[in-house]
Amino acid sequence: MAPNIVWHDHKVTRAERADLKNQDPCLLWFTGFSGSGKSTVANALDVALHREGYHTFLLDGDNVRHGLNRDLGFSDEDRVENIRRIGEVSKLFADAGMIVLSAFISPFASDRRLVRNMLPSGEFIEVFMDTPLEVCEERDPKGLYQRARKGEIKHFTGIDSPYERPAHPEIILDTSTLSVDDCVENLIAYLRERNMIKPRR
Amino acid sequence: MAPNIVWHDHKVTRAERADLKNQDPCLLWFTGFSGSGKSTVANALDVALHREGYHTFLLDGDNVRHGLNRDLGFSDEDRVENIRRIGEVSKLFADAGMIVLSAFISPFASDRRLVRNMLPSGEFIEVFMDTPLEVCEERDPKGLYQRARKGEIKHFTGIDSPYERPAHPEIILDTSTLSVDDCVENLIAYLRERNMIKPRR
Repeated sequence: MAPNIVWHDHKVTRAERADLKNQDPCLLWFTGFSGSGKSTVANALDVALHREGYHTFLLDGDNVRHGLNRDLGFSDEDRVENIRRIGEVSKLFADAGMIVLSAFISPFASDRRLVRNMLPSGEFIEVFMDTPLEVCEERDPKGLYQRARKGEIKHFTGIDSPYERPAHPEIILDTSTLSVDDCVENLIAYLRERNMIKPRR
Repeated sequence: MAPNIVWHDHKVTRAERADLKNQDPCLLWFTGFSGSGKSTVANALDVALHREGYHTFLLDGDNVRHGLNRDLGFSDEDRVENIRRIGEVSKLFADAGMIVLSAFISPFASDRRLVRNMLPSGEFIEVFMDTPLEVCEERDPKGLYQRARKGEIKHFTGIDSPYERPAHPEIILDTSTLSVDDCVENLIAYLRERNMIKPRR
């Protein structure tokens, strides 16, 4: 090869990364009380989309709290930083062309707005899991409500810390009236209607 | 749908995510002096792999310093945290089945070892850009060496801060003797020989 050949500094664009995956990048941001079905529905959607050949990734407490955000506690400051980092990582995944699913209580509107504003318009899809608090507490899958009621856990959302309801979520789901499969169907319909997931090539 | 149908809590596995992409996940960690060719070669590899249909993502100062790590400065503590977070994010991308390319000076062996240990064996591929310091300083693409020599930048790797050479890097490249295309060919050969990128289906 001639030594005077110049390398052209091309970079793979965001659109090229997404095009390879036959989808538009987006972030489905599941927010709601503990026990509202965020993780369950996000996982079920993840499985359904993957089965159809779409490229997804799920961020939740399991893979974030013990890794990237292991240095953060539960102070107000740390909770804001927790959501900020999750937003930044979600943005990187969207830049990689992925459909990102994130499942965190994220009780504060300002934090959710921060993440919404990180992404191009239309890519942040706020999924409000509007399952009534009584139902979530009745389910209490991790026994956390019981502990919060006893005062063993402080600043627990819905008990002694507020949850700010989304004012204009893109999607509202209530798992006390909808099955998990119904929720997944609603979400896939939303993505299909906007042509964010394309028919197979 | 009958209300007694139970949702089976299946999760998409790491292997399933990678299989969809016809590749094994890995992290190509480019380390070396400023001006050694890390970003140029990583970008060229990114373009070459993407053209062949592989699913890649590149992490570098451009998309990390102004986003996820915007709260970090250049103290020793912050430099360690900078690399730790990049490692954790790389791990998430590898869990998503991606081939991740990261281009950071990362001068300290302990930091690189930390990231290596985050990933399953064989997935961390240390690419040592062993371009001589004199060549890097002569290139000085961003004028940083000149500023460091004048004392305008402190703790600049190679000038007044050490670079710890990798003891056992998987790949060594010297862009003072190899063209960018040669480097890319070497890297692709490494991935092919280990069957980390598969023939097209």
